[in-house]
Amino acid sequence: MEISPIAFARNGYSSKFGIPRQSGRADSVLTRIVFTEPYRQAEALRGIEQWSHLWLIWGFSENTTWSPTVRPPRLGGNSRVGVFATRSPFRPNALGLSSVKLIKVEHTASEGTVLLVSGADLMDRTPIYDIKPYLPYTDAHADATNGFAHNTDYGVEVCFAQGTTDGIDPSVLRQLHDILKEDPRPAYHDDPQRDYRFEYGGYHIVFSVSQGVLTVKKIEKTK
Amino acid sequence: MEISPIAFARNGYSSKFGIPRQSGRADSVLTRIVFTEPYRQAEALRGIEQWSHLWLIWGFSENTTWSPTVRPPRLGGNSRVGVFATRSPFRPNALGLSSVKLIKVEHTASEGTVLLVSGADLMDRTPIYDIKPYLPYTDAHADATNGFAHNTDYGVEVCFAQGTTDGIDPSVLRQLHDILKEDPRPAYHDDPQRDYRFEYGGYHIVFSVSQGVLTVKKIEKTK
Repeated sequence: MEISPIAFARNGYSSKFGIPRQSGRADSVLTRIVFTEPYRQAEALRGIEQWSHLWLIWGFSENTTWSPTVRPPRLGGNSRVGVFATRSPFRPNALGLSSVKLIKVEHTASEGTVLLVSGADLMDRTPIYDIKPYLPYTDAHADATNGFAHNTDYGVEVCFAQGTTDGIDPSVLRQLHDILKEDPRPAYHDDPQRDYRFEYGGYHIVFSVSQGVLTVKKIEKTK
Repeated sequence: MEISPIAFARNGYSSKFGIPRQSGRADSVLTRIVFTEPYRQAEALRGIEQWSHLWLIWGFSENTTWSPTVRPPRLGGNSRVGVFATRSPFRPNALGLSSVKLIKVEHTASEGTVLLVSGADLMDRTPIYDIKPYLPYTDAHADATNGFAHNTDYGVEVCFAQGTTDGIDPSVLRQLHDILKEDPRPAYHDDPQRDYRFEYGGYHIVFSVSQGVLTVKKIEKTK
């Protein structure tokens, strides 16, 4: 079956680095869902504001080849698990699934009706193939069990080194804090001597992590 | 993007009639997920039994054209709502999303590793494009609100007319009861004089509904 994007995600995640490992984290980071033609019409979204949460079915943007087994970061990268037992991108059909919170339906002159959502674990410009309402009576299984995902607990304390936050928009700082508290370093990296660099929302960020504390050393506007 | 089935659903729902309106209903009805090559290998499912629930991304099998607005049965069929505010099949990319309960992983000689799940709202032979674990910490939003889906309460009392159940396998009767108690009549149908007929799991069933009671009048093996 041939599927085509109905929309694209737009946010500050210009690289994979810093994207939450699952949806629902980093709540202060907003993603705009901008529709393509012919789906860019208020009619197709009529009534959507009655729902608090939505599902996005989207495409992994890297070119992925499938693999029968993968090594999930949550297992320390050592154990192999079947791809269908994970949310890994290395799937036969490179589809992602994320639940997001619907913040606002915006009617704009240049992009038509746009959805503003929080909690999306999508990179900027990710193609979106479908949007569905989250139905709590069939989608929320409080009794579901967790498999291996609970074995490792991520999370660090974030501190901004003196001077780094001067002149930076407080909402950007809040977003950075939310992103960094999840410890966005690639799996299996734990070198306290090392500086990590990434770009987010038009800024270069430099940080290091030692003893459970993540220290932001620099925040600089990119050109 | 071109996507291809990794598996097909196999169950007793030979017609659309009787399929629960959403996943998670009719728990006694089991669906077998039978993989296609090259995905028919135990490796790709390694560790999946650690999860209690799974997501299926599947394809609506009817040939659907998209429509910007639809009339959901739950609204009595009178109000138009944007397609992305519903789970209607009339979507630009005809993808369905269902959470199911994983009952058993079976290793068979003829079909390789097969998943046995309950609560699937899929017709027999529905193509499945992806299977992902249900992650309660990101997928279960107990606080999500319900939009209009709670406005109508389905459900009838089911009674089997005398003699109809003679010689019918009790597990089939349990499945029929689960299916019928949701009132599977098409939306807006409420004619107490009328007999409804459908096929399920190799049986013809005839019933009528009056005053909130659904009476099964005949259960007959199909040829």
